[in-house]
Amino acid sequence: MSQSPTAADILAHIPEAKRKKKALAKRFQGLDYCHYVDDWKHIPRGTAVFGETVIDGYPHIGRVFALEAGLKAHFKRPFWAEEKINGYNVRIARIGDQVVALTRGGFVCPFTTDRLGDLMPLDIFQAEPDKVVCAEVAGPDNPYLESTPPFVAEDVQLFVFDLMTRGKAGFLPYREKQAYLDRYGLPPAPRHGYFQIDEIEQISAVILRLHEEWREGLVFKEDSPRDHRAKYVTGNSNIDDIQATSDNLLDLPPHYFTNRLLRLGLFIEEHDLPPTPELKQALGGAFLDGLGAAMTRYRRTHHVSKHFRCRFRNKENAEMLFKHLHRASRSVQIIRRDLRREDGYWLLEFERVYPALTGMLGDLLAGKMVFD
Amino acid sequence: MSQSPTAADILAHIPEAKRKKKALAKRFQGLDYCHYVDDWKHIPRGTAVFGETVIDGYPHIGRVFALEAGLKAHFKRPFWAEEKINGYNVRIARIGDQVVALTRGGFVCPFTTDRLGDLMPLDIFQAEPDKVVCAEVAGPDNPYLESTPPFVAEDVQLFVFDLMTRGKAGFLPYREKQAYLDRYGLPPAPRHGYFQIDEIEQISAVILRLHEEWREGLVFKEDSPRDHRAKYVTGNSNIDDIQATSDNLLDLPPHYFTNRLLRLGLFIEEHDLPPTPELKQALGGAFLDGLGAAMTRYRRTHHVSKHFRCRFRNKENAEMLFKHLHRASRSVQIIRRDLRREDGYWLLEFERVYPALTGMLGDLLAGKMVFD
Repeated sequence: MSQSPTAADILAHIPEAKRKKKALAKRFQGLDYCHYVDDWKHIPRGTAVFGETVIDGYPHIGRVFALEAGLKAHFKRPFWAEEKINGYNVRIARIGDQVVALTRGGFVCPFTTDRLGDLMPLDIFQAEPDKVVCAEVAGPDNPYLESTPPFVAEDVQLFVFDLMTRGKAGFLPYREKQAYLDRYGLPPAPRHGYFQIDEIEQISAVILRLHEEWREGLVFKEDSPRDHRAKYVTGNSNIDDIQATSDNLLDLPPHYFTNRLLRLGLFIEEHDLPPTPELKQALGGAFLDGLGAAMTRYRRTHHVSKHFRCRFRNKENAEMLFKHLHRASRSVQIIRRDLRREDGYWLLEFERVYPALTGMLGDLLAGKMVFD
Repeated sequence: MSQSPTAADILAHIPEAKRKKKALAKRFQGLDYCHYVDDWKHIPRGTAVFGETVIDGYPHIGRVFALEAGLKAHFKRPFWAEEKINGYNVRIARIGDQVVALTRGGFVCPFTTDRLGDLMPLDIFQAEPDKVVCAEVAGPDNPYLESTPPFVAEDVQLFVFDLMTRGKAGFLPYREKQAYLDRYGLPPAPRHGYFQIDEIEQISAVILRLHEEWREGLVFKEDSPRDHRAKYVTGNSNIDDIQATSDNLLDLPPHYFTNRLLRLGLFIEEHDLPPTPELKQALGGAFLDGLGAAMTRYRRTHHVSKHFRCRFRNKENAEMLFKHLHRASRSVQIIRRDLRREDGYWLLEFERVYPALTGMLGDLLAGKMVFD
């Protein structure tokens, strides 16, 4: 952390960062801010600045592919195991009289910000205006991701896993964070225990249960001032990722798939899981079902796309989100389907078109000859 | 074909091609030759020159991913359907008193050349010294490929699909080729009929039978002076490819896999094959079995490798092949295991080490943390 720039450094760098397009100026409901769109001069991507107020970017957490070896290689002290949730990362902070949710990239998310009141109690921002709540938002009705954890059946939910302080790099110590979460009734990411490094059997039992329940995995957080961290995912989370994305097979980098296959292979080997017919079928189906859906969709509509929906309290936020997605999507086209009142909310429906698979299927189904 | 350079052009270009490393000088058993290692100035890669004798490179054949649409888009006249065989392409020609087999790249293959007398009658080269025999060599005991057609259970076999003439671009007309094959008893690639463009039902019946028998596919050759061609593979050939290569998951370009998944998806859609549990299981297993084997091998030997074996009549050719593989393999390490007399042959055994997966497994199994 010695290289972390101070808030003063970050503020001082803004003019240059803007000139070099490392930081972009944005506006949300009268709030002017800028956010760093790349890691630059040790300022993490996603760092956002509102006037003099700096919200640090959420740092990368390293992934281990081998549980036992990874824990032994990287941890020196006992650690907590928290659930890693398949959603999108937000940092929530008070700016003046508003509370806003920033995406990983530091953009004020109109959807999450709109729904904060449904997702968590906001009292902490009255009592502790300089706290930043770091959380995962997950569920089927979100505008970004094509998958959902099995325990969020509808809409979205929020799970808090860290607290930060405005203008400061790093997280609050674990026990302090827990005390705040308890005091303010913040919904935590599920906690799965406190372990010694050599309690591999117990940790494996947790991860195997999560695997069987098709949950994503664990984040380990060391009980030490350096607050060292690592993440590790279940075998089935890889199949789930493939299932969720095989219908845009060509619009992701192809190593997206080989990487997940490798993780899955290592998981079943380490945990002595036999490659059963059921497992093979789940993996093969994850590829074939998505591809089949993509082709069916292409035949019907002449493009490969996926449907998204999310609910807002304020129509203005729905419009703003749509405008943002539309502008931000370079290679992926966004088509608005509907924005209507339903059950007291504004329901936005849109489609993401996957241009690479759309184009390729168009060519191939027309009989295109390929010299490969 | 109007752009095809003449033999005289090719000869005239050699000095420049050598200077620019587009052609490499080689020697095989006293024969000096050079071969073009890239497509260059319309000279196809694989073109080989022995003194004044030019053997043209074997041209690329385009692939269609949609059978009916592909045939309709590219063919104007009826065509033959020949079996596409999962092996390696050779051109066999007489050079002085020797008969040699060239790989696709134009290198004299010491293995194939050594075994020619076992693989086909050589009389054609006495009576027709300027003919070039184009064939696929396939079977489990070959030095290049990790898979074999189901109908070659041991050693290798050779299947002739084209004839060319030394010093001339293009193939002999189909009926003429057939007459030569019959006259000289050359083993043909299986022929599956002569079809009108609209006989899709009949052609589909052939490809579905090949699919069920886990054979590779068809090459279509138009009955016309332009001799237009296209290839189309079975769904199962893609699973077979994945099965054969998933143990070097990271040493192939990752689109190797996405491309085959797409082909498989299109095949089962076009031929109305339901994605049955058996099919899904075969696909999932193709990935998991190879990955499991790679990990088992890594745990035992600290590298991921595959075992190859092939038999020679002459020990010298075995030595030459090994030397060639060793020199040619930049990223893939070749380890000699054995060279011994067995059943009247010299049996060469060696291993190909896959460095990317070996390195990655080494890192990951040691607990390496990855920021992805």
